[in-house]
Amino acid sequence: MALVVQKFGGTSVGSIDRIRNVAKRAIAAQKNGDDVVVIVSAMSGETNRLIKLAHEVVKVPDAREMDVIAATGEQISAALLALAIHEEGGKARSLLGHQVKILTDGAFTKARIKTIEGSKIFSTLKKGIIAVVAGFQGVDEHGDITTLGRGGSDTSAVAVAAAIGADACEIFTDVDGVYTTDPNVCPSARKIPRISYEEMLELASLGAKVLQIRSVEIAMKYGVPVHVRSSFNDAQGTWVTGEDKSLEDVVVAGVAFDRNEARVHVVSLEDKPGVVAELFGALADKNVSVDMIIQSVTKGASERADVTFTLGKADLVRAKPFIEEVAKRIGSTEVRYDEDVCKVSIVGLGMRSHAGIAARMFRILATEGINIQAISTSEIKVSCLIHQKYTELAVRALHDGFGLSKEKTEKADKA
Amino acid sequence: MALVVQKFGGTSVGSIDRIRNVAKRAIAAQKNGDDVVVIVSAMSGETNRLIKLAHEVVKVPDAREMDVIAATGEQISAALLALAIHEEGGKARSLLGHQVKILTDGAFTKARIKTIEGSKIFSTLKKGIIAVVAGFQGVDEHGDITTLGRGGSDTSAVAVAAAIGADACEIFTDVDGVYTTDPNVCPSARKIPRISYEEMLELASLGAKVLQIRSVEIAMKYGVPVHVRSSFNDAQGTWVTGEDKSLEDVVVAGVAFDRNEARVHVVSLEDKPGVVAELFGALADKNVSVDMIIQSVTKGASERADVTFTLGKADLVRAKPFIEEVAKRIGSTEVRYDEDVCKVSIVGLGMRSHAGIAARMFRILATEGINIQAISTSEIKVSCLIHQKYTELAVRALHDGFGLSKEKTEKADKA
Repeated sequence: MALVVQKFGGTSVGSIDRIRNVAKRAIAAQKNGDDVVVIVSAMSGETNRLIKLAHEVVKVPDAREMDVIAATGEQISAALLALAIHEEGGKARSLLGHQVKILTDGAFTKARIKTIEGSKIFSTLKKGIIAVVAGFQGVDEHGDITTLGRGGSDTSAVAVAAAIGADACEIFTDVDGVYTTDPNVCPSARKIPRISYEEMLELASLGAKVLQIRSVEIAMKYGVPVHVRSSFNDAQGTWVTGEDKSLEDVVVAGVAFDRNEARVHVVSLEDKPGVVAELFGALADKNVSVDMIIQSVTKGASERADVTFTLGKADLVRAKPFIEEVAKRIGSTEVRYDEDVCKVSIVGLGMRSHAGIAARMFRILATEGINIQAISTSEIKVSCLIHQKYTELAVRALHDGFGLSKEKTEKADKA
Repeated sequence: MALVVQKFGGTSVGSIDRIRNVAKRAIAAQKNGDDVVVIVSAMSGETNRLIKLAHEVVKVPDAREMDVIAATGEQISAALLALAIHEEGGKARSLLGHQVKILTDGAFTKARIKTIEGSKIFSTLKKGIIAVVAGFQGVDEHGDITTLGRGGSDTSAVAVAAAIGADACEIFTDVDGVYTTDPNVCPSARKIPRISYEEMLELASLGAKVLQIRSVEIAMKYGVPVHVRSSFNDAQGTWVTGEDKSLEDVVVAGVAFDRNEARVHVVSLEDKPGVVAELFGALADKNVSVDMIIQSVTKGASERADVTFTLGKADLVRAKPFIEEVAKRIGSTEVRYDEDVCKVSIVGLGMRSHAGIAARMFRILATEGINIQAISTSEIKVSCLIHQKYTELAVRALHDGFGLSKEKTEKADKA
């Protein structure tokens, strides 16, 4: 007998029929002898509908009231699922964020979970009742309703699993696991049976959308085994777990890419201490996250340097005015922007013990004639910024070059 | 400076534009120097949509989960109104049932309010913020969401007004006050400027739909002055208040009618002690409310009696089987049903001190050739059951006959 948390996203509860399927799954798990907690998102489209409604009233809705409205999406789907479980002959009870209770900070629309009380869930389970918890929502210390930001239901699920010491957190979604890369871009992509938290975190940060980054952070912090799987079939998906020997042997677990960054090139600024700090300090003050940074000294008589960095395209419009203001102040002659870029990355625990992985990546890209505009590395990943038109070519070449393609891996599995 | 509670029904918040109007009204009251608490219903149609959604999942939805779903209607309209008040330059904050908190019993879908805490409302008002409270909803002692039943927002409004000691509770609705009778039936109906709680209670019980009965009971119990008025203009509506000299002079305040009752005639049962008790005891056990009751001894050798009573048409289908079962057991030869009936009633505090009002009512109906099938009376009302086809005729005749028609009353007002 295990204690399991099952999380179903908006697509999985997108219609009454699908809600019935979720009900059957939860009941099946219970009949299997497990204590079952289900976390649900709002029905697909509902959160957008609610946000639109608020925006019809006022252009920039107050965040507190926005959360009061947005939280109704999960409130409704949790109760509908409880009803569907009744209809299928099971016992269930919906629990909202303030009922559980999921205590968060007061940062409306992007709150962070502080603590989760387990008592209401445990007393529900003890009666043989499936606890259906509304995802995405919590309550702050004043009793105000908060929400966790887009994809927040993943975070709810893993945090609840951690709080109640669940044996596993199953994330049911519309894909059947985590893939070595996006199958739409690379047909030979294959499902990864097991991946470490660190790798998953890098993949999520680098553009893979299957799990919300914060949910992986929480899973890693509390050692919650996460099973990413399809809500439409019973196949095993991908287990995200702590690392062990077998995972460390994998040099490259996956290839990720992100087309949502833009490159900024600040030309010829004074090369003296504090100049770069002023530039990035100004960006940080405006809450703009910068990703890759390269500084290069310009050849010539005067001591001048160029700085290139990347940031999210979504932030670019907002950031342009003060980038240019600071650039002028620190003596730059020109700022250039390039939105036609893509960041391709390879991720793998094995990089820590295998030398020359980055060099091999650069070689593979060079062989394809792809120029590298910027590089960043961490212990378990290497990212290269390239022209966006090479995205698919680069992803396929790296996927093949690091032996991730289907046939080879199946052989490796058998070996 | 006064403390006012304003309640807006579903029609008054039925669109974004109407919500804006409500926002303007609340701000105007605040600018006038008042502390303002607004209670809102769900946008018109929303509660029905939510109930339908639940019924798509299961024919008879669990009441607890039904309330979790239904409560979202008011949650959304409260937050939207708070946003609209911001947009109009005011300060507002939505408060849900569990936040206020409005503590009820655990009778889901028809909960009764036990206590209301005022502290959250007062601390909101103290900061110059308009408190927008979600109507219709509360929370039971376990923290489960409850709703108060149809029209429950009236009850929320009056109960909140009582709890915080408001100077007035304004019920904004799509009619501009309480009328002497339904203007659709009787064009000479006029708006009543002031009416007592007792009269309002009788009128509401007898079919006038302008205020929910429980809200009037609470207003009477705690002496909350209620102002029923139009949400579409600034005209004075009807004040529902405690009685005083001037109100006692009104012999008949209004004429009500109710087409939603059915007559049941249990023919020829044994006329001995306990027989009638058995019949009505059985109905009470099944939670069927009986209204008018007449017992008549049949002429003839044997000691037998007929019993006629009325009950809500909505209950009739459900009640028929056990009415007939009991009727057989107590020796009745036949049960007859008649749904083509209407109960017309006159209501007025003055009846207590004026004799012959009932007789005058019977005379007016007789003059019109209308046969009376049953009669019931209380201290301040007389009701007659008639054939439904005479409804309009009877209402107009009584309205005229008791001097309620427009012209006369205007003269009376001037006198």
